[in-house]
This record gives sequence, structure tokens and C-alpha cells, in this order.
Amino acid sequence: MRNLTLLTDLYQLTMMYGYFKNGMTENEGVFDLFFRPRSDITYTVTAGLESVIQYINHLCFSEEDIAYLRSLKLFDEDFLAYLESLRFTGDIYAMPEGTVAFPFEPLLRVRAPIAQAQLIETALLTFMNHQTLIATKASRVCYAARGDAVLEFGLRRAQGADAGIYGARAAVIGGCTSTSNVLAGKMFDIKVSGTHAHSWVMSFPDEISAFRAYAKIFPDTCLLLVDTYDTLRSGVPNAITVFRELKAQGHTPMGIRLDSGDLAYLSKCARKMLDDAGFPEVKICASSDLDETVIRDLKMQGCRIDLWGVGTKLITSADNPALGGVYKMSAEIVGGELVPKIKLSDNPAKITNPGVKTVFRLYGKADNMAIADLIACDGEVIDTSRPLRIYHPEQTYKNMLVNDFYVKELLIPVFLSGKQVYHSPSVMEIQQFAKESLATMWDEYKRPMQPHIYKVDLSDQLYDLKKRLMARYSEVRS
Amino acid sequence: MRNLTLLTDLYQLTMMYGYFKNGMTENEGVFDLFFRPRSDITYTVTAGLESVIQYINHLCFSEEDIAYLRSLKLFDEDFLAYLESLRFTGDIYAMPEGTVAFPFEPLLRVRAPIAQAQLIETALLTFMNHQTLIATKASRVCYAARGDAVLEFGLRRAQGADAGIYGARAAVIGGCTSTSNVLAGKMFDIKVSGTHAHSWVMSFPDEISAFRAYAKIFPDTCLLLVDTYDTLRSGVPNAITVFRELKAQGHTPMGIRLDSGDLAYLSKCARKMLDDAGFPEVKICASSDLDETVIRDLKMQGCRIDLWGVGTKLITSADNPALGGVYKMSAEIVGGELVPKIKLSDNPAKITNPGVKTVFRLYGKADNMAIADLIACDGEVIDTSRPLRIYHPEQTYKNMLVNDFYVKELLIPVFLSGKQVYHSPSVMEIQQFAKESLATMWDEYKRPMQPHIYKVDLSDQLYDLKKRLMARYSEVRS
Repeated sequence: MRNLTLLTDLYQLTMMYGYFKNGMTENEGVFDLFFRPRSDITYTVTAGLESVIQYINHLCFSEEDIAYLRSLKLFDEDFLAYLESLRFTGDIYAMPEGTVAFPFEPLLRVRAPIAQAQLIETALLTFMNHQTLIATKASRVCYAARGDAVLEFGLRRAQGADAGIYGARAAVIGGCTSTSNVLAGKMFDIKVSGTHAHSWVMSFPDEISAFRAYAKIFPDTCLLLVDTYDTLRSGVPNAITVFRELKAQGHTPMGIRLDSGDLAYLSKCARKMLDDAGFPEVKICASSDLDETVIRDLKMQGCRIDLWGVGTKLITSADNPALGGVYKMSAEIVGGELVPKIKLSDNPAKITNPGVKTVFRLYGKADNMAIADLIACDGEVIDTSRPLRIYHPEQTYKNMLVNDFYVKELLIPVFLSGKQVYHSPSVMEIQQFAKESLATMWDEYKRPMQPHIYKVDLSDQLYDLKKRLMARYSEVRS
Repeated sequence: MRNLTLLTDLYQLTMMYGYFKNGMTENEGVFDLFFRPRSDITYTVTAGLESVIQYINHLCFSEEDIAYLRSLKLFDEDFLAYLESLRFTGDIYAMPEGTVAFPFEPLLRVRAPIAQAQLIETALLTFMNHQTLIATKASRVCYAARGDAVLEFGLRRAQGADAGIYGARAAVIGGCTSTSNVLAGKMFDIKVSGTHAHSWVMSFPDEISAFRAYAKIFPDTCLLLVDTYDTLRSGVPNAITVFRELKAQGHTPMGIRLDSGDLAYLSKCARKMLDDAGFPEVKICASSDLDETVIRDLKMQGCRIDLWGVGTKLITSADNPALGGVYKMSAEIVGGELVPKIKLSDNPAKITNPGVKTVFRLYGKADNMAIADLIACDGEVIDTSRPLRIYHPEQTYKNMLVNDFYVKELLIPVFLSGKQVYHSPSVMEIQQFAKESLATMWDEYKRPMQPHIYKVDLSDQLYDLKKRLMARYSEVRS
């Protein structure tokens, strides 16, 4: 594990210095990490917590780090000595990776001495923003693929090594079957896949020699790339010849890959050629600038693709490459007393929810489907024995009465007093958890375009607190 | 340095195994790394070479790596033993970082035993694609800022730690003055900047106490964030009060930062308020979802912004988060003889340029401005003593005669027979080199929308070779 303690914005350190010089470093603060509503991402699949855990456990300024900070000539020696001995001593609650989460919900909640809470803000945002973004994108792509295997192929287009590595992990959490990224496979024990490129074919005198050579080495996992010269006139016929040879030797040919041209047309033609040749079980894999929209449209046109290799557009979340999550103070502990804080804004979506909060998900007893979420004050108990009225957060005349429900709390303790109390499951277990979490959400919420918006309400107690604080600050400001 | 030897696609390893089993690992190949024409990126500022150098120098399968590969049950022990002893033994030529480069030009050229050349493909693409993308985006943002300082602020929205770290480095190469990313500052000796966030203001009973406390700690680098409550009614007046107090103590107040609202309007009002209060030298910094388009429009409307903090949209290259560079075989060495290779495609932009190539840039003797680039065969000498006719690469009826020019070759040796022969300058030197490289390009090429397209021609020798190979393969295919 690299030491990423300096992976922070300079202003966190200048603010820490300010708190230090004002004797405020040990004042505790509570911060929420959440994302705001946006039209293109109405739900997320959370990821990044394991990176947060690793980072927090290794949080420690090295001698080199201190020497570098000294060289900036911004800080005094007392402060540098304070940094040198600094470790994380706070609490972190978080949604387990793979949880379906919605705008305004704390994906992660930190309570810590304010200087520590500031120091870690940037890295926490970097990890959670990136990995949640990619897990979410993957879940959308897999949703479009409707059960077909989706292979993550994006490393070469990822924004650096980490984006490739942790992006692959997040993609698997979001539903991908495998990655092409060998290092990610090793680090996270996820399935790796891949066969050959055009250059393999080009290194042989002709296509059929290249296919034969490949089939000889991998007779039972032989997925042949058929578009180097001409897919239907050369690639597929040559693949069929080699598959016949393999079959004659008792092997089971695996499939072909299309990487260019019109994938709907080519896959239908290739399917027919393979079927006619007696290979109905041979799979067709497609790649080439795919995303959830293209996959949906190809499926709508009756393409015959069994496996989807998705690269650039998944690993970068190309249509929107940043989740935009934020980390906002929600309370301060002053003299042992918890003081809820609110940040106001002319834009109502930028007004924060004050206080120490948790999130409950309401499920119908009859069908175990998610009904709505309730952001509530920490420690609140939801009475499930009587009907609960859920309000639209802004247009409160829209509301519904929920009956026969049970609740699950989504935030769990990860660090308590600086000590790790939660250990991440394996990535494949997280994938399974995400699948189950997604399965409790009606399809209407998962529609890529204009989905139904899942209800996220505030508990009465939180709603009252927010109204009270808004009124108080409005008076202050007027 | 992490061991990133497994940072590759599985198919590179399966192909290597194929070459190994066919006794072909030592067949040499030549590969070009280049990007294809696209409407939104007509020029790039190259970056990523230093990461390539680090990666190549550390290329070595560890025992752990081998154990992992063994566990995949794809490879035999002979091959694993071969991998264990594998080091890079080839040549790499590249454009120095900070070079302005155009579509089809090899940013990097590898000549190596084919198995090695395949192994490194993915990581080379990851580094070059990512960092060139961000350096290019930064150069566009800085171009829009027309000499104003641009501060890179994007770490929290970067696609993982590396995207933040190497993205910051690339942003500085592309022209940014500084980064907020402390780790990048330490690693690359680049300037770090940042002051305080809204949470600082929220941690004090009121705004003026927060400003005073900050000014006390940093009296001479005091950039106050003025939009926590109300920019013009609270933030700027409070900042002016504190600036007066600082001035009375003999300090020079630095500036204010606007982070929300209409930045054109607010900056003009704030400028007037600061000027009227006797602070014409105090700077105004702005941030809030900026990119080159917003900066251009704000400037067009007469905003009074001196410093630009650019985050999400720069660090992710939000409008297009992948450069899409490719790595294609251009020649093979068979029995000591170099055989040029071409990849054909129905799409003319996807037809590769065959053979071992270099790039010359032609400059006018009179003004030292770049006239055109010439992709040529390696070893070609350009006769600058007589006029040279430059053709449009596809519409050859468009051509021009170049007189009074000199040439520079853009590719330089970086590795020869596996040994590093080039050492990167400092990042600030690279920034200077990029500035000079950009300064030789007419503004017309740098216009963000519908720029004039810089001429990149093939030398006669290369053009003939390409035509010959296309004809040969067309015959084969017909």
C-alpha cells in the first residue's frame, strides 16, 4: 500500500494549521459524504469503501512528507510535530459497497476531530466519487445487457493505472463478469478474460494460420477475433474451418469476437453461418465503443450477441465522468454538546441536511421490494407497527401512506475511535450483494431515460430540525 | 514505484504464450502509438513519457505475479520461467513530453521482440492516453484564460489517486500554474496552492471571525472565500474589513475567491468594491465548474477575474474523457529483414501508416512558426535547400509549396536495447517546452471551435510505400 497521506488539497492543511493555531484541532465535527440530485444519475451503486479503509489505516505523515511540508514555508515546527504524530481517531459509518444509494443520502459519515476530518476529505471524495461512478455505470450497462455477460475491457483508456485497477473492481461490483486487467484480477481475485488482438493475426502470413496457431494453444477457450480482414468473407469462414478441426479433435470451440462494423447485421449473419455449420453453441462476443445505449439499441434490433466487451465508455463513465459527490459538515461538538450545522444556498438542492444522520430503507413485507428511503436522525427508531407517511422532499403535498413494511438501516460502523471494526467481503460477494440490492428496486427506477424517481424523505424529526435551522439562519441573514 | 508489470490485458499474455509456443517471442516488431483524427481534439500536448520510463525500468514479473499467473491454469511452466526472466530489451523513441502533436503522428515508437512489445502495449496506452488528454485539456483551458493563472483544483473528482496525481502533473505541463494536490506537489516539485473552504467559515461563530482567524495565520497569502453566506452583502465587505486590518499591520492582502453565483456579475461588483476600498491590487479568484468555454464566455462579458481555479472538468477532461490513442504494428523483422505492415479498414482513417517512421516539423526561416509536419520513413533526410510540396493527406489536389524552411525531428531515442538513454527534464522545464512548442503554432490551429487543421503530410517515400502495400493487400482481398 502506498502512503497517500499527502493525497489531499493544500487548503485542508492550511485549514488544519488554522485550527491548530486557534487551539481547535480537537473540536469534533461530523461530515456527510453524499451526492446531489442530477438528471443522469438517479441512483448509484456504492463502491470505494475498501480504498477508504486502506487509506485510513495507512494515514500517517512520513518523515519525507514532513520535510516536504516544511519546505513550503507555510507551517511552524509545532504544527509539523503535531502532524507527525497524527493518526485517525474518529468514527466512520458507511453504506457497505454494493448498496444502491440515492441523492442526499450519506454514503459515508465521519465524526472526528475537525482537523482530521478535513485532512481526509479529499481522498475520501476521490475514492468514493470514482468507484461509485464506475460501479453505477457498470450496473447500467449490465442492466441493458439483460443477463448477458459483460466483460470490462477498458484499461488502455482508463485515466491512469488506478482508474484501470479500481475501475475494474468497481465494474465487477456493478455487475461485470470479468475484466481484461490482469493486475486487478490478481489484487481482487476477480475473473480475467481475453484472447487475442488484430496484431496476432497480422503476425502470421494469413488469417487461418493465425487462428490455427491460437486454437492449438487454447483449444478449449478459443475466442477468435474475426474482423482483421473481412468479417463475413474471411474471418467467420476461417473460424468455422478451425472450429471444425477443433471439434474433430474432441474440443469444444468457444466463440468469435466482432470488433468493428455494424454489430447488429454482422452478428445476425455470423450466427446464421455458425448455426448452418453446426456450431449453435459457439458464442458471439462483440466490442467496439459500446455503452448501455448502444447495447439497448442493438438488442432492440435483434442482434445475436452473447457476450459484451465494454471498454472506454465504461471505464471512464464517458457520458459523465465525475459523480460530483461532496463532503459537508453537518454538526459540531462544542463543549461536549452536539450542535447541528446547516449550509444554506439560493439553490434548494445545495441546502444541506443538518445533524448526525442515518438512512433507513423501507421494504414491503409482502414482496420485499424497496418502497422508499428515510434519512433520519441518528438513534431514531422507526415504528413499523403503524402506517408511515412519506412526503416528497420539496413538494410536500405529494405523499403516501406506507403499510406493512419493515426497515433496514443502511449505514454501518466501519471505524470506531480510529479502530477498524468492519472488514470488506470479497469482491464477488459484494457483486452478489449489489445484485440483491438492485433486485429490490423496481425496474421503473432503473430505466436509463426518465426513470421514476425513488422516494427519499426526511424523518419528521430531521425535517423539523432542518426547518428550525433554516428559519434561524434566515433571520440571521435578513 | 509500484510493480505494474501485470498492468496489462490478459490477451497480451495469451498472445505472448502463443508466440512462445510457436517459437516467435524473439521475432521483432515495430509498433506506433498514435491517435486518430477527431473533431474535438485537433492537436495534443503530449505527456506520459516519464510514467512510461518508470514502468519500463521496473518491468519484471515478481514471484507473486508468477504464482498468480500459474493459478489461472492457462500457461505452462516453461512460459512462466520465460516470463520470470523477461526484461525489456527493445528500443523506444518518443516525442519529449510537452510536444504539440497531431493525429497519425507516432507519439511513441517501440521496436522490440514481439512478446515484449505486446506486453507493454496496454500500460503505454494507459499512461499516454490519460496524461496527453489532460495536458491537452489544460492547454485549451489556459489558452482561454489568455495569460491569467489557472490553478488545478480537481483531485476530489479525479478518477482515482493516479488520475489526481498524474493529472495534476499533466495539467501543469499543459500550462497550469499550480495544483491543490499536495502529493503531486511533493512528487513533481510543482507549486501547490489553496487557502480555505466553506467549512472553515462554518466552524466559527460568524464570517468575520473566520476571516480574521485566517488572516492572522496567513497575513501575506490571505485569499478569502467570500460566498459562504452572501457574497456581496457579507463576504466582500467582511473581507475588506479584514484587508484594512491587515494593511494597518503592514501586510499586503492577497485576494478573494468566488465559488458560486454569476461569476461575471459578482466579479465586476467585487472589483468595484475592492477598488473603492483602496485595494486595486487585491486579486479575484474564481472557481465553480469552469472549463475553457465558460472562461471564454466570462471573459467576453468583461468579468474581472485574475485567477481561475479549475477542477472537475479539467481533471476528467469532462467533455471527452478518453483520448482514444492506439498502438499498431507497423513492421516486423523477419529473418533480419524489415517487413512493413499495414492494417486496412473500410474507414480510411483506420488504415495505418506502414514501416518504421519518424516525424519532421517544418518551420519558416523568417518567423520560426510551424508550417506543417511530415511523417517520413526513419532515416529519411529532408532536403531543405529546395522547395517542398506538402499535400493534403486525402485530397491530394490540395497542396502547397514550402520555401525557406528548416526541419526538426520530433522523435528522440528514450530506450535503446532496453537501456534508458533519455532523462526527463523537470516538470516546470517541460511546461516551458510546451509553451514554446505551442507558441510556434498559429492561433488559428488553437481555436477551440472549428480550428484550422494543421497540415500533416506523408513524405513521398512513405506515401509510395503505403500505396504499394494498399494495392498489394487489395489484390489479396479482391
